Amino acid sequence: MTETPWALYVGRFQPFHKGHVHAVNYILSIEDGIIIAVGSCMNSHEPKNPFTFGERLRMIIGVLDDLEVSRKKWYAVGIPDVKFHPAWVQLTKSLSPPFSRIYSNDPLTRILFEDAGHEVKDIPFLKKEQYSGTEIRRRMLANEEWSDLVPKATFQVIKEIKGDERVRTLCANTERHQSEH
Amino acid sequence: MTETPWALYVGRFQPFHKGHVHAVNYILSIEDGIIIAVGSCMNSHEPKNPFTFGERLRMIIGVLDDLEVSRKKWYAVGIPDVKFHPAWVQLTKSLSPPFSRIYSNDPLTRILFEDAGHEVKDIPFLKKEQYSGTEIRRRMLANEEWSDLVPKATFQVIKEIKGDERVRTLCANTERHQSEH
Amino acid sequence: MTETPWALYVGRFQPFHKGHVHAVNYILSIEDGIIIAVGSCMNSHEPKNPFTFGERLRMIIGVLDDLEVSRKKWYAVGIPDVKFHPAWVQLTKSLSPPFSRIYSNDPLTRILFEDAGHEVKDIPFLKKEQYSGTEIRRRMLANEEWSDLVPKATFQVIKEIKGDERVRTLCANTERHQSEH
Amino acid sequence: MTETPWALYVGRFQPFHKGHVHAVNYILSIEDGIIIAVGSCMNSHEPKNPFTFGERLRMIIGVLDDLEVSRKKWYAVGIPDVKFHPAWVQLTKSLSPPFSRIYSNDPLTRILFEDAGHEVKDIPFLKKEQYSGTEIRRRMLANEEWSDLVPKATFQVIKEIKGDERVRTLCANTERHQSEH
Amino acid sequence: MTETPWALYVGRFQPFHKGHVHAVNYILSIEDGIIIAVGSCMNSHEPKNPFTFGERLRMIIGVLDDLEVSRKKWYAVGIPDVKFHPAWVQLTKSLSPPFSRIYSNDPLTRILFEDAGHEVKDIPFLKKEQYSGTEIRRRMLANEEWSDLVPKATFQVIKEIKGDERVRTLCANTERHQSEH
Amino acid sequence: MTETPWALYVGRFQPFHKGHVHAVNYILSIEDGIIIAVGSCMNSHEPKNPFTFGERLRMIIGVLDDLEVSRKKWYAVGIPDVKFHPAWVQLTKSLSPPFSRIYSNDPLTRILFEDAGHEVKDIPFLKKEQYSGTEIRRRMLANEEWSDLVPKATFQVIKEIKGDERVRTLCANTERHQSEH
Repeated sequence: MTETPWALYVGRFQPFHKGHVHAVNYILSIEDGIIIAVGSCMNSHEPKNPFTFGERLRMIIGVLDDLEVSRKKWYAVGIPDVKFHPAWVQLTKSLSPPFSRIYSNDPLTRILFEDAGHEVKDIPFLKKEQYSGTEIRRRMLANEEWSDLVPKATFQVIKEIKGDERVRTLCANTERHQSEH
Repeated sequence: MTETPWALYVGRFQPFHKGHVHAVNYILSIEDGIIIAVGSCMNSHEPKNPFTFGERLRMIIGVLDDLEVSRKKWYAVGIPDVKFHPAWVQLTKSLSPPFSRIYSNDPLTRILFEDAGHEVKDIPFLKKEQYSGTEIRRRMLANEEWSDLVPKATFQVIKEIKGDERVRTLCANTERHQSEH
Repeated sequence: MTETPWALYVGRFQPFHKGHVHAVNYILSIEDGIIIAVGSCMNSHEPKNPFTFGERLRMIIGVLDDLEVSRKKWYAVGIPDVKFHPAWVQLTKSLSPPFSRIYSNDPLTRILFEDAGHEVKDIPFLKKEQYSGTEIRRRMLANEEWSDLVPKATFQVIKEIKGDERVRTLCANTERHQSEH
Repeated sequence: MTETPWALYVGRFQPFHKGHVHAVNYILSIEDGIIIAVGSCMNSHEPKNPFTFGERLRMIIGVLDDLEVSRKKWYAVGIPDVKFHPAWVQLTKSLSPPFSRIYSNDPLTRILFEDAGHEVKDIPFLKKEQYSGTEIRRRMLANEEWSDLVPKATFQVIKEIKGDERVRTLCANTERHQSEH
Repeated sequence: MTETPWALYVGRFQPFHKGHVHAVNYILSIEDGIIIAVGSCMNSHEPKNPFTFGERLRMIIGVLDDLEVSRKKWYAVGIPDVKFHPAWVQLTKSLSPPFSRIYSNDPLTRILFEDAGHEVKDIPFLKKEQYSGTEIRRRMLANEEWSDLVPKATFQVIKEIKGDERVRTLCANTERHQSEH
Repeated sequence: MTETPWALYVGRFQPFHKGHVHAVNYILSIEDGIIIAVGSCMNSHEPKNPFTFGERLRMIIGVLDDLEVSRKKWYAVGIPDVKFHPAWVQLTKSLSPPFSRIYSNDPLTRILFEDAGHEVKDIPFLKKEQYSGTEIRRRMLANEEWSDLVPKATFQVIKEIKGDERVRTLCANTERHQSEH
């Protein structure tokens, strides 16, 4: 890590799915190493952010170990949200080892990092409409099959913490917030 | 209060209506006493949270005194929202006398308290579609009759503070936030 | 400024458009001077708040200088949002020179300042459906002509900072937040 | 409570001691009722704020019940600290039933409430150098006798929660924060 | 302001004294214009930060007008404190028109702005031990003569708001916080 | 990590010194693996917290790699401070993989985790008066030799980021905050 700075890969990983694995492999085919910046790390138990940072970290560690990606090629850090958006770049720099390029398809991440003088590169999507957190959470909510969209270690963590039940409960809750309270 | 811990009843009470009275009576028929946890206590002057904690407390005190529920059987405390959801249980414990069971129909409250090892019980609803804060605020906004949904003391507090006008203004405001600013 | 307190004019100015110029002229025709309170001053890089306070201040200074409004007749200050709404009046008083009347068409501003004992006056709109921040941001997003809705200095600031591109990117981002992450 | 507004009595009550009882009795000899505003209600487990609001509330309820002060003559509410001091008056008003006069010997409370147009009255101290939270916490820390400075119900709550041990631990901690970390 | 960026002058201005006037004149002898960044703008009613941003702004406007410094050569903006220090540079940039160099004798300001690639220049002090906010507040507290350390307009604002009494009260308060509560 | 929960080791690591290495080795001699919880992770550029989480993480990774501690035996996560102390346990649980025992000599950590039902164990100190962050920062400030108190990788990171100069500047700053502003 001390020699060439690694690349930064930004996401929320709710949960860590096969599209994310594809992106990690893609970045590692180009770069010496990868810092996985787990955004919204303080958020959990929300319809769009059901899992804690600790749970997401377990998924990432489990999946990358199963794939035999060397622990010396990646590290995952949590980045909390900030209400004051322009602070986000500096926050990421303070909470992470040094990095060179940023890999992200998120336009706000692109604007903020480019304005701060960083290079931002796109990530080729793998079947974007399927391998997406939104689709996985939608399937969990609808009680449809979602296990084929995530690697085995992600599946195991979610089952152990009853994460799919949590998604159903949180969304039920949201509806009630609209209609009942 | 020092002998058997009381039960905790969680709600926002925007405003304190007849459904809430029904719940208080139900819980007091089972438990020695009741701690009324008034959620979102820092929020007010918002479409879904029009009334301050102070105003809601006046409604609760007025209504339960009118019903001659002994002051030694209940106490109401305010609990602010936290962005970091898993802290909510600990926050409630710190801002309240000790409690045993929790009474709530809210799934997020249920998940968080059950994960922390507490028993959570449902409350039978009284005509849920009528006796709900949402319905009362909707009627206030639409200038429909709402007084039969709340006990007399709640009605008096709302009239004194012009609370129904406040709801209409706040909702007008929300629309303008969407369409004009 | 020390002799008669000025009037306070509250807005977000995202961006500062011809409707705002109309309001400033209207108020200056009645009052000795005007304090322009720029709300949500910490917010930027959001679909409804694309511009920073610094950028909005440049627009205001440029426009009023072009119109040869004396700098001794106005001053602009930033006011951040507060989650606890009733603090807003006191916050505005602390971050501003003393003021007499408030000019605003915003109902929440009206409620809060009137409850605190201030006089609040309406501002006659200039073609409200056109000269509005919402309409200008909608046109930017849709790549329609928007330059005729803003004074020249506002146009120049937005072009220099590529503000219309920023609006398009931020809104793209918002859609992706819904559909992809 | 609905007829004449009560007086407001502001303190931190760390813990609720005999000096506070003296003040409550003094105020109740003059006023119709008393709202006890428990400041710094979110703070606990700190050398100057060892007890939670819930624990302080138990002390107040226990002591005033033992003294047979009618529950219809007082109510205690928690008020969190705010970094933005001028918001404190408005925060207190929002989190409390309406009040008339304020009783406080604290100069900042006096300035802020007087600036907001309220009457603020002093409270005669009862042996100020003894009956003070600072002295009680100092004795706890030094393992000196403190039980005679607090009413019996306060003593029982502190013993039950091992509050004096907590004070010793927290202060040990503070020293280590200075010397070791 | 649109042509050459101005210099940034950072301070807290509690209160705006003759040393600050000296610095403004020095900077204006070198630069085209000056942005006065008023730090800790949300803080007031504290021993080290007795005055609100609004009060400090009145001092600055009054003093610079008396000195006939053209309003087209300076503008003052408020910058709130941030707990996360590395965000401070970006916060200042967002709340201010664009600037070139920074003038400051504060080492933390220097580190943070230099790390962000900005040039930071020292300001020659004018009798530093006298013309300092600390000395002025000390004299107010001790009831010593302080009026010769501030320009006339600063003196007038402080007298009008009874600012010297406020300093004495706030410091009394701090002592009591240590010894009594 | 998925089989037996690891132990949690809590510290601030400002910087990561030989005493911390001793503690890691001690814990790894007993436990299957160790989660290093880096406290105050959002704090940096302060006299007691000079280094960012990213910088501290680089020290930890460098030192443990040099010692050939397998990456599969440890993971380091950042934990921000919370003003509301009782939330700290839950925050740590959410930002970390699951853990069993806690290793800490900090009494507040002990109280909070024990109250939450966790086992907390002491760590034998290695020459506590020398191998302490306070002593190292004191030596940096006094321009005394400090390199023998830290492992080589910590030394290299500090030199690369000019961390000892930063400590001197920050402390100079603190003094000036007392004497000048």
